Amino acid sequence: MSVETTILEMAKSAQSAAGDLSRCPTDRKNAALLKIADQLEADAERIKSENAKDVSAARESGLSKAMIDRLTVTDGTISGMVQGLREVVQLTDPVGTTSETWIRPNGLEVCRMRIPLGVIGIIYESRPNVTIDAAGLCLKAGNAVILRGGSEALNSNRALAETVAKALSASGLPETAVQIVPVRDREAVNHLLQQEETVDLIIPRGGEGLIRFVAENSKIPVLKHYKGVCHVYVDKSADLYMAEEICLNAKVQRPGVCNAMETLLIHQSPAPEFLPKMAERFVQAGVELRGCPETCKIVSAAKPAEEADWYAEYLDLILAVRVVDDMDAAMAHIAAYSSNHTEAIVTSDYQRSRRFLREVDASVVLVNASTRFNDGGELGLGAEMGISTSKLHAYGPMGVNELTTTKFVVRGNGQLRS
Amino acid sequence: MSVETTILEMAKSAQSAAGDLSRCPTDRKNAALLKIADQLEADAERIKSENAKDVSAARESGLSKAMIDRLTVTDGTISGMVQGLREVVQLTDPVGTTSETWIRPNGLEVCRMRIPLGVIGIIYESRPNVTIDAAGLCLKAGNAVILRGGSEALNSNRALAETVAKALSASGLPETAVQIVPVRDREAVNHLLQQEETVDLIIPRGGEGLIRFVAENSKIPVLKHYKGVCHVYVDKSADLYMAEEICLNAKVQRPGVCNAMETLLIHQSPAPEFLPKMAERFVQAGVELRGCPETCKIVSAAKPAEEADWYAEYLDLILAVRVVDDMDAAMAHIAAYSSNHTEAIVTSDYQRSRRFLREVDASVVLVNASTRFNDGGELGLGAEMGISTSKLHAYGPMGVNELTTTKFVVRGNGQLRS
Repeated sequence: MSVETTILEMAKSAQSAAGDLSRCPTDRKNAALLKIADQLEADAERIKSENAKDVSAARESGLSKAMIDRLTVTDGTISGMVQGLREVVQLTDPVGTTSETWIRPNGLEVCRMRIPLGVIGIIYESRPNVTIDAAGLCLKAGNAVILRGGSEALNSNRALAETVAKALSASGLPETAVQIVPVRDREAVNHLLQQEETVDLIIPRGGEGLIRFVAENSKIPVLKHYKGVCHVYVDKSADLYMAEEICLNAKVQRPGVCNAMETLLIHQSPAPEFLPKMAERFVQAGVELRGCPETCKIVSAAKPAEEADWYAEYLDLILAVRVVDDMDAAMAHIAAYSSNHTEAIVTSDYQRSRRFLREVDASVVLVNASTRFNDGGELGLGAEMGISTSKLHAYGPMGVNELTTTKFVVRGNGQLRS
Repeated sequence: MSVETTILEMAKSAQSAAGDLSRCPTDRKNAALLKIADQLEADAERIKSENAKDVSAARESGLSKAMIDRLTVTDGTISGMVQGLREVVQLTDPVGTTSETWIRPNGLEVCRMRIPLGVIGIIYESRPNVTIDAAGLCLKAGNAVILRGGSEALNSNRALAETVAKALSASGLPETAVQIVPVRDREAVNHLLQQEETVDLIIPRGGEGLIRFVAENSKIPVLKHYKGVCHVYVDKSADLYMAEEICLNAKVQRPGVCNAMETLLIHQSPAPEFLPKMAERFVQAGVELRGCPETCKIVSAAKPAEEADWYAEYLDLILAVRVVDDMDAAMAHIAAYSSNHTEAIVTSDYQRSRRFLREVDASVVLVNASTRFNDGGELGLGAEMGISTSKLHAYGPMGVNELTTTKFVVRGNGQLRS
């Protein structure tokens, strides 16, 4: 069978499974999720031995140590997947819930009912645990899912898919509700992106290159974020100790993730007092500082920043620092360089906090809290499917609700349009 | 200036205008909308004389009478646009409103705030009133808009845009908040669809060919519907007089629109009683009937339906009719041939009404009411920007709320992630 036919058949069988899943009550979906969790534990040895093939091939082909770490499935990885599934069981099922009903003058009763999206395609890079995390969340929301992991993880993903299929079958749900693209060929991705008649949404997860490729080639709607160039603006009126704590947390608590701070903006007035102490703490934490000319005057440890630094998503212990004249300048900097991901202000001023929250265009805006809180779990959505910085459908972390949509439900007693 | 540069400059200036508009309070937006309405009345003669150029060129090029009717701007068209704008003023402004706030265990206060999408591109066919209707709704939701009307309406649209620009300028809003693509060249559409850095949403309005072209070529998210193949299923337990009234209304009240019924499905049990009476009323109303073999047995006036009839959006006084064994068969027919637009059941049975509403996948599902109610005004959303049958972001009529999105707003007092 050609790759094109394989993908077409997968998409069709996923659509058929989606019909069944959309009618599936919560308790049956939850039972299937728990069954997958149990089956993962039962199949741990098989999964690890299939994974070992991928890891050994990756070593031979010279993948970086970081990539191999991400690829490797340990007992810890498996218990993480099991734990994740049990958390998804605890989430409220949005399917079938309705908004308040409103009554039209002619007596029609109108509400919106939440329904699954249908078929979701996930295209991701090497971490095999995404296979289970994504499948679990999609199933909970009543969707079928087609998973396309990294080609270097294909044995691992096939083993995981086999486990899922066994559990779905034992639970009386269609096995084609969760499918792994079984070929390494990149062509498969292109074909998947053309299935607009059967696939309702594509979510790419990985590096900017992968995401741009998907966004540019997909005929299906895509939810994505390219990168997180997140700022903390320390205002004139900030509690400077709180500002230090927030900036340190936003930068160093986990520097390799999209909601870590990449640029610190500081109002000129507290800068001479704030920056030396802050810089000392950053340097102690191993952070390299790249500053504007004003910053470099105040902080001897700072190297001069170049224009490219204001655009940079370092994902590392590097920080760009800029002294700004006032809040307008800070907001202009954010508007020019932001990736619409996460933006924070530290301030004690009511008007400026209000203005920042209203006017800054980002998926999450915060006052007096670390940028690291842009996360589905931290914001109370439960497990998440990444963060969207596109504005359509979902802007910010995507939880189980964002994997659904709403239709209008109208109840009448013979109303006609005149 | 090349067409490409023209579009690029328009998109950039629209983005800048969108920033201003997003911060604009409701009363200033409403004042501008009322000013546009007044200016339209003041400029009526100029608009009509520019429109006369388009109409005369259209006559020379042999456009159909129906197309010329749609193109022609009369005093009635202008007062319709004025009235439309005044209705948009009455709509609640969603921008800046927030959801209920929830509190995280660490004290973070989280809510969602509604914000404009940014820049919206509308690509439509000949009706010049869309120019004003779309601009009004976009402005109300705080968005800038780039309008690309039919090339045969360019003089009319330019005249309308001049009126809008005068009114915006007099209201202190940026003139580039509403812009008309000033060239006839189709290339302009291609360039507009590439502006994913500055344009947030594309809405195509027109025939299926236009919409497919836009959907296939856009790098920007698109909200669209291709067509409305709407069904009414008359159940075994239906009140047959109510069913006749609903079916007649759904087919003949305005046959040329997307929410008119195209296929009638009737349960086999009441078919021998229902179809002859119903057919008589349809024939009296000038409706041509195309039936399944069973229908043709019962109704002598019916011609045999072909497979293509079940897919057809006639937009005319033609109706496909099928007798089905039971509700499962009706729902299977809908699932196979539906365009996910509008689906209705006539029934007196509680279980079947509930099942139909839950399980049928369409942007609007109705019990005991005409399909013609799939309309923003009729469902209580106020003025609308068409109907979406894609599931992402909006499914069903799109009102002013669907021209916005939400961001997360987080208020803390020094929270750090641990």
